[in-house]
Amino acid sequence: MRECLANVRERKPLIHNITNYVTINDVANALLACGGSPIMAEAAEEVEEITAGCDGLNMNIGMLNAGKAHAMELAGARAQKEGHVILLDPVGAGASAFRRNTVKHLMEKIEFTAIRGNISEIRALAEMLGETNPDAERRRSRGVDAVAGEAVTEENVKDMAEFVKKVAGWTGSIIAVTGKLDLVADEKNCYIIRNGRPEMSRITGTGCQLSGMMTAFLAANPKKPLKAAAAAVCCMGLAGEIAWEHMAAEEGNATYRNRIIDAISRMEGDVLEKGAQYEIC
Amino acid sequence: MRECLANVRERKPLIHNITNYVTINDVANALLACGGSPIMAEAAEEVEEITAGCDGLNMNIGMLNAGKAHAMELAGARAQKEGHVILLDPVGAGASAFRRNTVKHLMEKIEFTAIRGNISEIRALAEMLGETNPDAERRRSRGVDAVAGEAVTEENVKDMAEFVKKVAGWTGSIIAVTGKLDLVADEKNCYIIRNGRPEMSRITGTGCQLSGMMTAFLAANPKKPLKAAAAAVCCMGLAGEIAWEHMAAEEGNATYRNRIIDAISRMEGDVLEKGAQYEIC
Amino acid sequence: MRECLANVRERKPLIHNITNYVTINDVANALLACGGSPIMAEAAEEVEEITAGCDGLNMNIGMLNAGKAHAMELAGARAQKEGHVILLDPVGAGASAFRRNTVKHLMEKIEFTAIRGNISEIRALAEMLGETNPDAERRRSRGVDAVAGEAVTEENVKDMAEFVKKVAGWTGSIIAVTGKLDLVADEKNCYIIRNGRPEMSRITGTGCQLSGMMTAFLAANPKKPLKAAAAAVCCMGLAGEIAWEHMAAEEGNATYRNRIIDAISRMEGDVLEKGAQYEIC
Repeated sequence: MRECLANVRERKPLIHNITNYVTINDVANALLACGGSPIMAEAAEEVEEITAGCDGLNMNIGMLNAGKAHAMELAGARAQKEGHVILLDPVGAGASAFRRNTVKHLMEKIEFTAIRGNISEIRALAEMLGETNPDAERRRSRGVDAVAGEAVTEENVKDMAEFVKKVAGWTGSIIAVTGKLDLVADEKNCYIIRNGRPEMSRITGTGCQLSGMMTAFLAANPKKPLKAAAAAVCCMGLAGEIAWEHMAAEEGNATYRNRIIDAISRMEGDVLEKGAQYEIC
Repeated sequence: MRECLANVRERKPLIHNITNYVTINDVANALLACGGSPIMAEAAEEVEEITAGCDGLNMNIGMLNAGKAHAMELAGARAQKEGHVILLDPVGAGASAFRRNTVKHLMEKIEFTAIRGNISEIRALAEMLGETNPDAERRRSRGVDAVAGEAVTEENVKDMAEFVKKVAGWTGSIIAVTGKLDLVADEKNCYIIRNGRPEMSRITGTGCQLSGMMTAFLAANPKKPLKAAAAAVCCMGLAGEIAWEHMAAEEGNATYRNRIIDAISRMEGDVLEKGAQYEIC
Repeated sequence: MRECLANVRERKPLIHNITNYVTINDVANALLACGGSPIMAEAAEEVEEITAGCDGLNMNIGMLNAGKAHAMELAGARAQKEGHVILLDPVGAGASAFRRNTVKHLMEKIEFTAIRGNISEIRALAEMLGETNPDAERRRSRGVDAVAGEAVTEENVKDMAEFVKKVAGWTGSIIAVTGKLDLVADEKNCYIIRNGRPEMSRITGTGCQLSGMMTAFLAANPKKPLKAAAAAVCCMGLAGEIAWEHMAAEEGNATYRNRIIDAISRMEGDVLEKGAQYEIC
């Protein structure tokens, strides 16, 4: 974990973000805090040129509109041509036909290095794959949809890890599922991560921030993508734990949000190495 | 007041926000802090589907554009069909013909549960009603426009309360006017609220945050809408008072903004019940 | 410096901002903190009317799109007709042909009171002028492009000051270059400013905030534009220094961002007068 963070800080990857306006400022600040550098651009007129000059592309479908969907297609195609890291954050993928169709379309056109979401979003994505994939029925019969509908808990974590590995296999992407327990998997291996605090879900943007950071970790660690993605998750979760320790009695959500970014910006390699709580299965 | 807040925390209403990008993050965090849950969507392709799955709709015309105005019409019509709470925040309603016309159009098409603004915005709205309403002249002769041009003060508060009740009657909506003194009225009753701090006006977004929270309070308390709207105003004002008490000597606007959201997230029912400063007239 | 700040606080200039969504909230809060008042509007339907009612216009090309570029042209023309202060922040001016062409077009149509950027952005702008200006070749031969490619350091600061004065002469605008050392120049004089902290570059938005504040300082001090622009730069830099002194051991980027805005909101005239570190050459 230590060297993954060190590489971000040394290489300072420039990450192009096409993202929602709710958390866009948090994403920029989280990227700066971990050692990367952000640029935001979403006009069709410039996204290809901008992304060509970057090291990675983070695409988040929150507050999607037709213009952004088009820009994502253009930027994604160019980033892929350049061999850049490309991450998809399918925010609310199941919330509307518009988001589902856009995600499906993007997944057909672009090979994502990684996809990060909560379990509902990853389930929505797996269901989409089912609709376009001839062996969907077979997958359903293996119980994939059953486990996919639940939250990840200590009781079902091993089954969930297998599910996430399968989605990774179908998509060819690293799949990161964040929640009470976090899972980060490629086709063969899955990190089960136990960092973080439940209070992180009561502030907006920790997921979006993590997607930005994960893109930077992947861009700075091209030879170990799975470990890099897991390191980003551990870094965010551990920052949430450290931030919580510093909360004063009268402090609440907004200060917690700030203290998390503070902790990311101050994260030391040794602290991350020692504090990261994970197993690989 | 206590039970209004408790209902928000228990029912966790999901609020669809179409809002400006200046304070969109604050609105999301204020909604989470009070116990609700936010979703932001503004593309015509999805707003009807998104709002149908929510418990309330908060529409804010700051940074209005033609696409958002269209989305507001679509979302408003669908939310109304579903029987959802719908709130209008007419930010800068008097600042341009574009905003005035959009507000007028929305008010013709949609029955708002509540409208929240400062006195200038509510006055602009009352003037619009005057333009489309045959008894506008009669209203003017009763002195409505005279009082509407002033700030709400201890000297004019009773007249202002009558004015706000009248606007509530004309619109069929709860009208919430926030400022030094806050007024929350339906046709018959008006809460005069004395919570809050003048420093709250020196940070951006407390009004927009309150609109989001009020939508959640209304959605979670369908049987007592006037009391719910007043409780949201008291909660925000009291949070501003509590936040101010915790300010250190070197702290200023940005920390105050955070401490207000902190105080909302930590607000206890008993504290709200005891701290709410209001009379009903 | 003292009276420039006092004038902002007394006159409370209303500043119309057309800006990027990454830092739009920070810009609003920085404007409020220094004593100004912000309004954001970017729809072609209303920008002319909105800007006519303001005291200054701040245009920032971050996250540019075709709609905003058009709105900037409309708003800029109207603000110029009204005799208002107009500031351009050419964020990432060199990052894409779309931004370069928009900046070039705006500079042909609008006489900017001031242009504020980092050295790369001002260099990109100088190169554009070279492309459209018949004596470009002559300028190149005087070594302008050579010095423009470097950061401003104690070693090259006098040459850089000459370069910035020349750009001011070509554009007819006050040019403010911010970085480790800040330069604020008109055709004849250049303030070399040594306030600020390197950590300010590790949080997003300090540049955008400064552009908003500088527009307010210019609008409130029409008779001393160069001094007003320099005072805004000193105020932001000094706020960064003061904020840093208050940082606790566990605090990092996000808290630093907040403490900077805190320090702006609490800045006293005497503190600014005494703390401003500059020479004029």
